[in-house]
Amino acid sequence: MNELKNYYRKASTYSSAVALLYWDMQTYMPKAGGPYRAEVISEIGTYVFKLLTDDYLGDLLEKASPQNEVDDKIIKMGKKDYYKYKKVPPELFEEITMTGTVLEQNWEKFKPTGNFEELRPLFEKLVELNKKYADILGYDDEPYDALLDLFEPGMKAKEVEAIFEKVRDFTIETLRKIENVGEISDPFAIELDIERQRKFNEWLISYLKYDMTKGRLDISAHPFTNPIGLNDVRITTRYILSDAKNSIYSTIHEFGHATYALSIPDEFYGLPIGSSASYGFDESQSRFWENIVGRSLSFWNGIYDKFVEIFPEMKRYSLEDLWQGVNRIKRTFIRTESDEVTYNLHIILRFEIERKMINGEIKASELPLIWNELFEKYLGIKVPNNTVGCMQDPHWFGGAFGYFPTYSLGNLYSTQIYEKIREEIDFDNVVKNGDFDVIKEWLKDRIYSKGKMYQPAELIKIVTGKPLSHEPFIRYVKEKYSKVYGLEI
Amino acid sequence: MNELKNYYRKASTYSSAVALLYWDMQTYMPKAGGPYRAEVISEIGTYVFKLLTDDYLGDLLEKASPQNEVDDKIIKMGKKDYYKYKKVPPELFEEITMTGTVLEQNWEKFKPTGNFEELRPLFEKLVELNKKYADILGYDDEPYDALLDLFEPGMKAKEVEAIFEKVRDFTIETLRKIENVGEISDPFAIELDIERQRKFNEWLISYLKYDMTKGRLDISAHPFTNPIGLNDVRITTRYILSDAKNSIYSTIHEFGHATYALSIPDEFYGLPIGSSASYGFDESQSRFWENIVGRSLSFWNGIYDKFVEIFPEMKRYSLEDLWQGVNRIKRTFIRTESDEVTYNLHIILRFEIERKMINGEIKASELPLIWNELFEKYLGIKVPNNTVGCMQDPHWFGGAFGYFPTYSLGNLYSTQIYEKIREEIDFDNVVKNGDFDVIKEWLKDRIYSKGKMYQPAELIKIVTGKPLSHEPFIRYVKEKYSKVYGLEI
Repeated sequence: MNELKNYYRKASTYSSAVALLYWDMQTYMPKAGGPYRAEVISEIGTYVFKLLTDDYLGDLLEKASPQNEVDDKIIKMGKKDYYKYKKVPPELFEEITMTGTVLEQNWEKFKPTGNFEELRPLFEKLVELNKKYADILGYDDEPYDALLDLFEPGMKAKEVEAIFEKVRDFTIETLRKIENVGEISDPFAIELDIERQRKFNEWLISYLKYDMTKGRLDISAHPFTNPIGLNDVRITTRYILSDAKNSIYSTIHEFGHATYALSIPDEFYGLPIGSSASYGFDESQSRFWENIVGRSLSFWNGIYDKFVEIFPEMKRYSLEDLWQGVNRIKRTFIRTESDEVTYNLHIILRFEIERKMINGEIKASELPLIWNELFEKYLGIKVPNNTVGCMQDPHWFGGAFGYFPTYSLGNLYSTQIYEKIREEIDFDNVVKNGDFDVIKEWLKDRIYSKGKMYQPAELIKIVTGKPLSHEPFIRYVKEKYSKVYGLEI
Repeated sequence: MNELKNYYRKASTYSSAVALLYWDMQTYMPKAGGPYRAEVISEIGTYVFKLLTDDYLGDLLEKASPQNEVDDKIIKMGKKDYYKYKKVPPELFEEITMTGTVLEQNWEKFKPTGNFEELRPLFEKLVELNKKYADILGYDDEPYDALLDLFEPGMKAKEVEAIFEKVRDFTIETLRKIENVGEISDPFAIELDIERQRKFNEWLISYLKYDMTKGRLDISAHPFTNPIGLNDVRITTRYILSDAKNSIYSTIHEFGHATYALSIPDEFYGLPIGSSASYGFDESQSRFWENIVGRSLSFWNGIYDKFVEIFPEMKRYSLEDLWQGVNRIKRTFIRTESDEVTYNLHIILRFEIERKMINGEIKASELPLIWNELFEKYLGIKVPNNTVGCMQDPHWFGGAFGYFPTYSLGNLYSTQIYEKIREEIDFDNVVKNGDFDVIKEWLKDRIYSKGKMYQPAELIKIVTGKPLSHEPFIRYVKEKYSKVYGLEI
């Protein structure tokens, strides 16, 4: 068993290097270093892949004698991954990584132009590679399931579809109801200089008790969390002059991811159980902290004084004004700027598109056309260009298919967990008083400490006693937004 | 030949990761990430070592059919390294890396206390490991030569000793002469806030034409240059409130290293000829830019206006005052704060101590005692504690023995190169006008473009027509400091 653990620990050092290479690429790397960096990430990423599919690991997994339940889980999860990836030729894996890294760099360059044609050839290649990948990984119902399983183990597209349909219909209806009330004015539509935004965000993470001996807050074009190594989990945010709430909620969101990663037991590090349960579960925590905690009236109770101290020009707004301001519902083009209600529509359309692309029902080259069509159908607004359309996110261009649905699954998990935690702790008061350790301990005990020992479908049952459902989310939206908008939803 | 080149290129990606892991450890890594980071660097560093000693590489080197002189050099240098490192057991290499990484982190922690006892056990171990390493690498005259060869290929301790003795005696005599004149006052002994220092240093690197698409300027406790990848060479500096010249000359020094690394032909990247000729040659370039260019009156001519624009409180000093100020000669405890004349004494004492430690003539545990004794003998001042004594530098605690002499060798190479370049270009005017590209092109043509195709002893002959000598350095000091101090040296 020890030999097995040591092997994983060794492999984890290479993953750690890849994580740092990626983090650096997004934050501090000088531009001209890009092409070679792609080569480095691809080579070492492929080496990790080789280590995790090496016959020697297979032997260790087969020979290992588990001493307890944790060991059982290590072997079970380890075997699942091993036999899954074992089927994939390293050359295919390398080609996907390399193509994705190069295309993501191109995307960064061409996104402002909105010229999809510049990306199309490599994008088509990447979709084809992923279809091949799905075929090799194998599936029961449809190719897309094979990729979805990489991010949300055990989940099927059909199940996602069933839940997403409910959420979609409810959201479209809710939007209509809310828009009858009229728009809430936006107190944040004002220029607040970056220097003070930085200061506030740095205060904010210390208020949330993010341990800075184990983390960092940096700036990147797209905020992200990167577990770089044991006791080293970094977050980034971005500062937009005329939208201070963007940085605030990016920071809290990433803080949620980081809190999860930093709370997984040290002794799980590098092992098959040493990460979050799934991408969806990971997202449930970023969403939990961002929306359920961070966008609550209680939370603003705790940060209001500091906020107006740093931004005295905002004193003219009351606590309630600001709380309403961060909970405005509005149709937008950009996923990452959208509110927690319409957000799911952005995801559902991506899910539908990528599912069809991978299942071969639409061509990669048709992406802009189909995007614009579906976007108008769901969001009700006409996409003016690809920059704010199908080229807005890095995921697909980096090669991540099957990833997007986990964002909305995260929303759903988070509200279901919220209903449970409220049964057990005086949530509003805890948040108001900034006793975040009480919440962290609860989440650590129920979720974080379990690492990846369970599949998400099992874990949500263990934590809440029920299978995943869209209902808690709908109840959450009804309760909260009836107050925000002063109407019965 | 291509297979061989590809193999090296692949190995270089892992070295690139190690370089980034190290750079990050010194700049941005959260503290608690340290222990695991040591594990990562050790594992991947060892893997690089394995790649470069793999039988497969040996076969490629033996089978390769060179097409031209460059190929010949690749094979020659490649074989030299291969057969040298082939003798070393990977376990020994791993133990040295691991011990050095951990000890360097401990050194960082205990340096302020000056308590050598906290470091002693691991330090003794590291010295013993290096003695073993030297034995395995092999030598003709003395064990220390084996380690010196890692940094200054082909150089022998006896040769170094012969030159250093001349430099030492000249320096001690020069110090006495200068001190008879009395001290030059220090215009920089004033608090200049870090923010403006940053601003000036950022201006300075753009004035020197450091290409920021291929580099960065960051902050670290000990300034360093790190060639992280192709077209990615980063430098750091440090800011001391009451000594602005420290950051300025650290920046110019590291800029010199970076200019060398960035000027080696791209097609050499990752190959055995794809680095500077030696550590000494690398240092010759940092010293060249720092001292010969940066501390000249002509250079201050070019930067004076900007300097007093950013620091108007310095306007009361003339150009000559500031030039004299950055050329004050003074006995100090700290190597990195010492002037270019006494500097060599700091190195010579380190060379003598480490040579005896590795040759087994003194014990590792005796370091503080011997340091203090020799320091007083050469520098004439009594060391008050280990913080400013034998614990001031990271080198030994990181496991680098044989490295220190390359600093003074760099000084000697640089002045010898200076005598040559002055024969061919109007140096003073070029510097005065900030036409640094003229100097860069000359150096690129003669030195940088050759990468590691030649051993340092060959290269200095190719560039200057003569073997390395202490005489140009002595002439340089006499000419310059007679002017600075207004006396005949």
